[in-house]
Amino acid sequence: MAEPAYITISGRKWEQVTTLIPAEWRLDNKYIPRAMRLSPLESVHQLHEFEEEYPTNILDVPRECGILSAKEVRITEGHDVRGLLSEMVEKRLSAEEVALAFCKRAAIAQQLTRCITEPLFTSALQQARNLDAHLTRTGKPIGPLHGLPISVKDSFNVTGVDSSLGVAALCSKPAFNDASLVQLLVSLGAIIIAKTNIPQTLGLLDSVNHVFGRTLNPLNPKLTPGGSSGGEGVLVAMRGSMIGFGTDVGGSIRIPAMCNHIYGFKPSVGRVPYEGQTSFGLRGTSAIALKPVAGPIARSVADIDFVMREIVPRAEGVANDCIPGQWPVSMQREGRGSKKLRVGILRNDGLVTPLPPISKILEEVSRILANSTVADVEVVDVPTPPIMKQCFVNAGRLMSVDGGVPMLDLIASTEREDIEVSMRKALWLSGQVDAIVLPVAAHPVPRHDQYGCVSYTSAFNLLDYPAGTIPIRKMTEADLKLELSAGDKVLSKWDADNKKLWQGDRSVYLNSPLSVQVITPKLHDYELCRAMGIIDEALRDYYARDKTGKAML
Amino acid sequence: MAEPAYITISGRKWEQVTTLIPAEWRLDNKYIPRAMRLSPLESVHQLHEFEEEYPTNILDVPRECGILSAKEVRITEGHDVRGLLSEMVEKRLSAEEVALAFCKRAAIAQQLTRCITEPLFTSALQQARNLDAHLTRTGKPIGPLHGLPISVKDSFNVTGVDSSLGVAALCSKPAFNDASLVQLLVSLGAIIIAKTNIPQTLGLLDSVNHVFGRTLNPLNPKLTPGGSSGGEGVLVAMRGSMIGFGTDVGGSIRIPAMCNHIYGFKPSVGRVPYEGQTSFGLRGTSAIALKPVAGPIARSVADIDFVMREIVPRAEGVANDCIPGQWPVSMQREGRGSKKLRVGILRNDGLVTPLPPISKILEEVSRILANSTVADVEVVDVPTPPIMKQCFVNAGRLMSVDGGVPMLDLIASTEREDIEVSMRKALWLSGQVDAIVLPVAAHPVPRHDQYGCVSYTSAFNLLDYPAGTIPIRKMTEADLKLELSAGDKVLSKWDADNKKLWQGDRSVYLNSPLSVQVITPKLHDYELCRAMGIIDEALRDYYARDKTGKAML
Repeated sequence: MAEPAYITISGRKWEQVTTLIPAEWRLDNKYIPRAMRLSPLESVHQLHEFEEEYPTNILDVPRECGILSAKEVRITEGHDVRGLLSEMVEKRLSAEEVALAFCKRAAIAQQLTRCITEPLFTSALQQARNLDAHLTRTGKPIGPLHGLPISVKDSFNVTGVDSSLGVAALCSKPAFNDASLVQLLVSLGAIIIAKTNIPQTLGLLDSVNHVFGRTLNPLNPKLTPGGSSGGEGVLVAMRGSMIGFGTDVGGSIRIPAMCNHIYGFKPSVGRVPYEGQTSFGLRGTSAIALKPVAGPIARSVADIDFVMREIVPRAEGVANDCIPGQWPVSMQREGRGSKKLRVGILRNDGLVTPLPPISKILEEVSRILANSTVADVEVVDVPTPPIMKQCFVNAGRLMSVDGGVPMLDLIASTEREDIEVSMRKALWLSGQVDAIVLPVAAHPVPRHDQYGCVSYTSAFNLLDYPAGTIPIRKMTEADLKLELSAGDKVLSKWDADNKKLWQGDRSVYLNSPLSVQVITPKLHDYELCRAMGIIDEALRDYYARDKTGKAML
Repeated sequence: MAEPAYITISGRKWEQVTTLIPAEWRLDNKYIPRAMRLSPLESVHQLHEFEEEYPTNILDVPRECGILSAKEVRITEGHDVRGLLSEMVEKRLSAEEVALAFCKRAAIAQQLTRCITEPLFTSALQQARNLDAHLTRTGKPIGPLHGLPISVKDSFNVTGVDSSLGVAALCSKPAFNDASLVQLLVSLGAIIIAKTNIPQTLGLLDSVNHVFGRTLNPLNPKLTPGGSSGGEGVLVAMRGSMIGFGTDVGGSIRIPAMCNHIYGFKPSVGRVPYEGQTSFGLRGTSAIALKPVAGPIARSVADIDFVMREIVPRAEGVANDCIPGQWPVSMQREGRGSKKLRVGILRNDGLVTPLPPISKILEEVSRILANSTVADVEVVDVPTPPIMKQCFVNAGRLMSVDGGVPMLDLIASTEREDIEVSMRKALWLSGQVDAIVLPVAAHPVPRHDQYGCVSYTSAFNLLDYPAGTIPIRKMTEADLKLELSAGDKVLSKWDADNKKLWQGDRSVYLNSPLSVQVITPKLHDYELCRAMGIIDEALRDYYARDKTGKAML
């Protein structure tokens, strides 16, 4: 019997993707986990059969496998965005060398985790050569991101490339235009080296589909890499890209950042061009529905600051969905301590009580910030606003507006206004805090397909607050021993489900990343980046000096 | 037979309003047009019977009637906002003297035009005395608007005062809160001396209802004062208030400004607090519907600039419906000629061809700007974007969203996105112009109940562009002689209706005000104010020097 057609289409697509990795960048079989030798379709459902064989050193393979030269290891590991750009502008590195190093590393990441949907290595190298020629000819970089290797989620259209979203029916339908953000970044000199994997409906929190298979988390393949910008999270964590651009309508930038122990930044609507995405949404519903946003996933706050400063002031000029914006000062130029930062700590959203290690990390962050000697931070407790638990249901309704139940959506829209006003009063109107720290999720990074309630992230899509993820440290044996309080009230069915994630064997969470989320009021995106920078600096300083074994970041 | 109840309620309300004008501020009967002696209800329908008796000098009565002292005439006529505030801060005038002068003048305006719904003279004078005491005690003004007499449209809630909107059922239902804008302005030191008349449904373009009657246009009582912020337009034109705040969802600030030969400024959504209005809208529809905005009606661009500079940066902090905003430089401090202004001229919206005097004034403005010696302006023709005519129908649909036809609204909402993108491309993306000048309406200020299609104004509510009215000059005998072009195509049924306004006897338009509208891209509110200032300066300079008789402003 012939295979069904969709398998053929998917199969052909996967073959194409695989063929685009040159033979000399192929890993020796000894490095490739058996799980990665499954077909994409098999990887969706049969992965758990190979759990016991997962390697624990995926992050180290690019450095060890011999495909990258020592110089290429330094290129991909030795710089932040600003530093790498300086190397190219000052001609110590060519754009081609840099692109080649990152393409190789991305190819390795792909063979270890299935994080890529569209390798764009050939065009990336060609573009890099053009940039080098331009620099030689004119003596000047083509723009402020001259030669920066970046990646984008599969949904961003790139001319001539599929935006298949992991669906057979969308394969071999190359886009006719670049998304506005792609256009902008390329015009500034950035080089897109790959598009990255996503869940089939874009709505799940694992990056898994029948065309490209299931993306693995390089920190621990038993755990989810998160979604929907999960391929981005993995590729950036593996240093296969300097900055990844994802999208977020309920947590899809912040969650993969959490799962891969890196930084994610979900801007307010209108700050970063979103238009030019392929999606399944019906048109015309966007006036009511939650508006998804695009934003960076990166390895430092400074890198987020660097790209946002180039994007935000230009966004309105290049995209129909953006508003005038400013990014007044580079964080690096502002200097620390110029103004005290007042940080609120919000421990519970009233819908799902964070599991013990999440509550603990919040206490730890609160204490570190209050006692920091490098950052001028004041810490205040923020009580849970009683209305906060309603954010989740309303966000859910507005995420799936499909024209079928418009009256329900109008009701949700009314409730949204009430919630906006009440939350504003509860969190910001007293003027006591500049930013609030809270969990990204009520649970640690879970196993595949186990991600729970997104109430801690989707609330800030409903409210349109900018929100970012900061990685803190990894889970210790001591964290694993923390127990649920016996008297803990079950707040909701999501809360009951969440508690199950901490029952039974928890050993899978050992060394898994712990993160916090930071929020500021709507459209205070620059202020969020500044707050994240100050908080992050205080934390890094503490863990660098801490000798108790917690400093594992 | 007893009168129906609604007449009794309306009658009682009108009696109350009238009683609030002290006996010593009552005009001698000789000044009061017979039309103004009608009951409110009679004024709605029987006004035309008294047309031939209308006085032509309504604007002069406050100066001549003897109720204002010579000093009070100077107070109300001799200053712009900045100047009047200086007089008070430097103690050359007390806030009480100023408030008293404006209250008197407002009372006179009311007796001549029915522009007021709620006289707030007693509380205004009390507040003025408090301000004076504060200044004496502390040596400092209470805020940057210390003592500024202002007025607001009836729909703005003021604690303890009705927001009846001219509807009997809403009379004697005093508001429990101040609108956010009222709260802000009062906190800055402004004094609200009256709320002003509106059309019964807030949706018409005459300010007429069964409780307060029909507001007259002080320039020519045969013509409409405009609406829905018509009472504001009249009170500011009569100098009974320094600044009036209206609202605009289809032209309701710009149209009364045009009808009363003053300046109106409709901001983008989120720049000026709107919340805290009484309206007939159902809740929950606002996510799809056009969002109305609040904005100033004033006697100069400098006055608009002055109050916007105090409001916009504070708006987000005091209102739930505003976003972070800046007003970087005061126009007066910026200095002229710092940067060339590129002005586009848009002659026709493709739906309704402007009548001959409107086209002529646009040509005249274009010529004056191109040849100005005081302003550095470059003038460019802007062809009519083919999609522009679709703005009107879509704006109309979205103005009346009522939950009854949500699918239709969703369609309109999709079309809205397409229109936004196409208009942006057609008008702004070439980067050729900073601002565009076009008509406020396709016809001159018409007779009562004759206002035509609002396509030239509502387009910029749909697109959320900031838009303002600049008065140019008055209609001359020569203008009256201009004929419709015989070959003129009829563009639409609205175009056919519009042409009728220029057929037959046109003598009523003699000396009626001619204005233009200025627009900038969405959220470029400061840039609009700057452009209006430069354009206005060039025009005033020209007409001041022009000896041909056109300079009648």
